[in-house]
Amino acid sequence: MTTPSPNYIGIDVSGTTFNAALVGADGAVLQRREAALERDGVGAQAARAVSELREAAGGAGVAGVGVGVTGLVEPGTGRVVVSTDLPSLTRADLRAELSAATGLGVVLENDANAAAYGEFVAGAGRGSRNLFYVTIGTGVGGALILDGRLWRGDSGFAGEFGHITIDPEGVQCSCGNTGCLETVASGPNIVRRTQERLLRDSTSSLSRLGLKRDFTAADVAHAAQEGDDFALMMLERTGRHIGQGLAAVINLLNIERIVLGGVIMEAGEMILSAVVREAGRRSFQPCFESTQIVAATLARDSVPVGAAMLARDSGDLAS
Amino acid sequence: MTTPSPNYIGIDVSGTTFNAALVGADGAVLQRREAALERDGVGAQAARAVSELREAAGGAGVAGVGVGVTGLVEPGTGRVVVSTDLPSLTRADLRAELSAATGLGVVLENDANAAAYGEFVAGAGRGSRNLFYVTIGTGVGGALILDGRLWRGDSGFAGEFGHITIDPEGVQCSCGNTGCLETVASGPNIVRRTQERLLRDSTSSLSRLGLKRDFTAADVAHAAQEGDDFALMMLERTGRHIGQGLAAVINLLNIERIVLGGVIMEAGEMILSAVVREAGRRSFQPCFESTQIVAATLARDSVPVGAAMLARDSGDLAS
Repeated sequence: MTTPSPNYIGIDVSGTTFNAALVGADGAVLQRREAALERDGVGAQAARAVSELREAAGGAGVAGVGVGVTGLVEPGTGRVVVSTDLPSLTRADLRAELSAATGLGVVLENDANAAAYGEFVAGAGRGSRNLFYVTIGTGVGGALILDGRLWRGDSGFAGEFGHITIDPEGVQCSCGNTGCLETVASGPNIVRRTQERLLRDSTSSLSRLGLKRDFTAADVAHAAQEGDDFALMMLERTGRHIGQGLAAVINLLNIERIVLGGVIMEAGEMILSAVVREAGRRSFQPCFESTQIVAATLARDSVPVGAAMLARDSGDLAS
Repeated sequence: MTTPSPNYIGIDVSGTTFNAALVGADGAVLQRREAALERDGVGAQAARAVSELREAAGGAGVAGVGVGVTGLVEPGTGRVVVSTDLPSLTRADLRAELSAATGLGVVLENDANAAAYGEFVAGAGRGSRNLFYVTIGTGVGGALILDGRLWRGDSGFAGEFGHITIDPEGVQCSCGNTGCLETVASGPNIVRRTQERLLRDSTSSLSRLGLKRDFTAADVAHAAQEGDDFALMMLERTGRHIGQGLAAVINLLNIERIVLGGVIMEAGEMILSAVVREAGRRSFQPCFESTQIVAATLARDSVPVGAAMLARDSGDLAS
């Protein structure tokens, strides 16, 4: 008689939704709980979700909890030290609070790192040892897995892909630099560039995007996927910028696999091929030839799955 | 009574000179042998140097040999698979040949990797765990040490810093891309840019460089160090390009230390401060704040010392 292997709980508190999952030891999602994020009561909301999912786990039990958060997590303490999107996290000690409320070990991780780990264990990164993960959403995030482990860097800030300079004479970025990848490739900047071009370019009035007053980067991606020429052009250019940035990663790290996720990937094969083409054009060829560039497969499960698998693989669960 | 700790021999066959050293287990150079490189008899020249240095080692003995070569070394076989500068290396099996001739274990490593390891063990990288090494010479080379070990990447090509795109609309590079760092910052390209500017700019005739028919990047560096305004401007600009490239490394890896070596460093503090300024301007600040950017200290010893220390730390010396 074998004991059923324990499950893990992964929670994503990185966006506007709260997204929790019961995850098997193999990374498979067994149950989901989604709700609007209670911005000033994240700890209590997380404790309730853990309690519900633990009940759902039944006899298999839950061996640990992982939480992916928007912001920077201090490696030693597990405290969130910077979080522009959710400043309440920096005032609380979510790890200690959740651990006290549930009696379980808890790990906290930056959301891009958690998503990278999710794709690595159970998504498009499966089978690789070295992986760079990029997510294009409100910002441009990146995370590195080297030799099967998250690479956090000297002070926990590695993977700041969005602030690589793409155009030394480009647009001013919120970080103070000019021409960061984020100034052209983040969701809001894709919208900004598209709007500017719609105003400027008479032919663009033909685009279905021109019919809308407000639109999002996802709308641009969907229009492109449905064959809108103007949206295609905007995403093709976005893909080129991302490809140029990835070429730097490929040249420096001779990385085995690159996984692209986030809203922009809703444009599918079209954006991926633009990225791959430019990365190939701008990489040192022997480096490029050993890199696979693929689309993420876990979608919104990437953070919960990755956080749960980090709990599984963590040697020092606080409990 | 303690046995004296064994020594190692490190050899640099990366330039036009052959440069061998007897190196203590702590990375200190005990003896040097320099000569013109015998381009078609590298194996025999290396075997002679090993024999001489072994004699010099006396009772302490020599425990292994490391060789730094220009070109790409295949990690598994230790064969040189690509070497633009010294194609004879790809036809021979230098490791097997030298090992057979000396009866010692031999490791082969790419010269930039060996230099990085030398600086890491016994030079400007001492005390760090994570290091990026850049050398500006005929080309622009880079090498990474992560968690105390050389990071070679998926197929052995990591650290191709010279082919990072600095200016997407820049000059055509020999690699096929446009605007690679190497197209502006390598020794020959510093000379090219300086010559172009001397032709174009009337005030530049005031520069002492204008008095020479032929000059090298080292001449530009020396002129800058002696206060020549024009040479200072050329190197200040070169430093900015290098700083922009380093900002990508800093953002991606949140690296602890960056060590700059090669001919350009003969301009000293002036070039270093231009590099640091631009890297700071173009980095994500939390990443930049934990990075030290320093000048290499081993000069021409970096490759022999690093190769010797790689022999010391190699688990699989071929003998």
